[in-house]
Amino acid sequence: MILANDELKKLISTGRLKVDPLAPDTVRENGLDLRIGGEYAIYAYEGAVVKPCELENARHLFRIVKADEVVIPPRNFVLLTTEEYVKMPDDVVGLANLRSTLARYGLVIPPTVVDAGFEGNITIEVVNESPNTIVLKRGMRFLHLILVKAEGRALYSGTYQGQRGVTPPKGLRGEC
Amino acid sequence: MILANDELKKLISTGRLKVDPLAPDTVRENGLDLRIGGEYAIYAYEGAVVKPCELENARHLFRIVKADEVVIPPRNFVLLTTEEYVKMPDDVVGLANLRSTLARYGLVIPPTVVDAGFEGNITIEVVNESPNTIVLKRGMRFLHLILVKAEGRALYSGTYQGQRGVTPPKGLRGEC
Amino acid sequence: MILANDELKKLISTGRLKVDPLAPDTVRENGLDLRIGGEYAIYAYEGAVVKPCELENARHLFRIVKADEVVIPPRNFVLLTTEEYVKMPDDVVGLANLRSTLARYGLVIPPTVVDAGFEGNITIEVVNESPNTIVLKRGMRFLHLILVKAEGRALYSGTYQGQRGVTPPKGLRGEC
Repeated sequence: MILANDELKKLISTGRLKVDPLAPDTVRENGLDLRIGGEYAIYAYEGAVVKPCELENARHLFRIVKADEVVIPPRNFVLLTTEEYVKMPDDVVGLANLRSTLARYGLVIPPTVVDAGFEGNITIEVVNESPNTIVLKRGMRFLHLILVKAEGRALYSGTYQGQRGVTPPKGLRGEC
Repeated sequence: MILANDELKKLISTGRLKVDPLAPDTVRENGLDLRIGGEYAIYAYEGAVVKPCELENARHLFRIVKADEVVIPPRNFVLLTTEEYVKMPDDVVGLANLRSTLARYGLVIPPTVVDAGFEGNITIEVVNESPNTIVLKRGMRFLHLILVKAEGRALYSGTYQGQRGVTPPKGLRGEC
Repeated sequence: MILANDELKKLISTGRLKVDPLAPDTVRENGLDLRIGGEYAIYAYEGAVVKPCELENARHLFRIVKADEVVIPPRNFVLLTTEEYVKMPDDVVGLANLRSTLARYGLVIPPTVVDAGFEGNITIEVVNESPNTIVLKRGMRFLHLILVKAEGRALYSGTYQGQRGVTPPKGLRGEC
């Protein structure tokens, strides 16, 4: 079941779901609208060959920019972080959706999941599929997170647990 | 819970979910297949800088084309509208998915949501990620809308309520 | 409801959900991580005009490459197949998500659905939105499949039922 407005407010008021900071317009009809944080990451190189399976760590491939404005050139992507630090209950899963207004401007995100039991800021890939440069601002609502009840409980225990700020990918050496 | 075929037909026959026009092949195993409508929108400019936070309205950035064929150049996107005008119950949320056949040709959409209580035609960003021009036709099934029960009720009350035809994005001046 | 770890293991142990081969790290907190199989498909032509509505079959447009490494050039896409052959229960639907680590490298997939009652390898469009070439490997976990309970039962009966290996799109002649 997708949690509607009142159910989300109950989860927050009982402390089972944490969203910090929580603005008056964060809780929407059927989900949470999360905001753009104060830094983003872009690849530091172009024309390189990136082999995740051979990388211990990929941090060096990215440049992290502290800024109140995010300028995304045509046909390029940035990693954005949410302003909010969220803490998910162990029986609710988040499905990442793009705010429909931003999709209409030509932005895209991939479908990804925020696991039950995850906590941290959320890092999201945002692609500009348009032939124009698109400029976004810190504090802008961009990520529409749908929260879905899970059958059974689970606690995310992956690498990104507790991540703060925009977080580049880990290396996958040894895993593939 | 995702509503399967029989549940969808019940919602439609009781009038709680409206899909107009409703074709014999609209209701599928686990969702609705909606069709391409008779107009699409593309950016009227290339190489511009688009700042949603400074726009009252973005209509002037787009050209709306009435057509039975949609020609999408390589690595470009269009805003499509569904032929169908839908009316959602207040306790069911729609998750926009791309028909798998069209994904295999190289098309992409972002994950977006159709809120409980929304009514209107649905505007969807469709990106051609391939190195070839892809030509679609009016009336073609393209959007696979999954309908998920919500816990709690909510009524969409946003700007796009009752939208008819392809609808460019609103401006976000004053909001960010 | 999204099926969590224990529920997924129950479905597999009772044989209602089949995943073959099943590795120790396939079942995750809230879904299945499926692996890259041993072949992929790319368009055999560039600069062509592709009209799905006029095609009986689109197989001739694609080149299928048997390989343990998948090299995806900047701003291009491939069709990947899962290593696993899955068999879905008739009351559970799969939602395709990209593993967050791969999204952070600049890869994107569209939101697509694995219908209740579907069986086969799963073919997924993977786009490289980055300015760098990205190299993936056979056996790498890439697709995070969320399994959601359906209300009502349904059996997928489409063209791709029982598909083996990477499967290019069907033609849509006669349908639009």
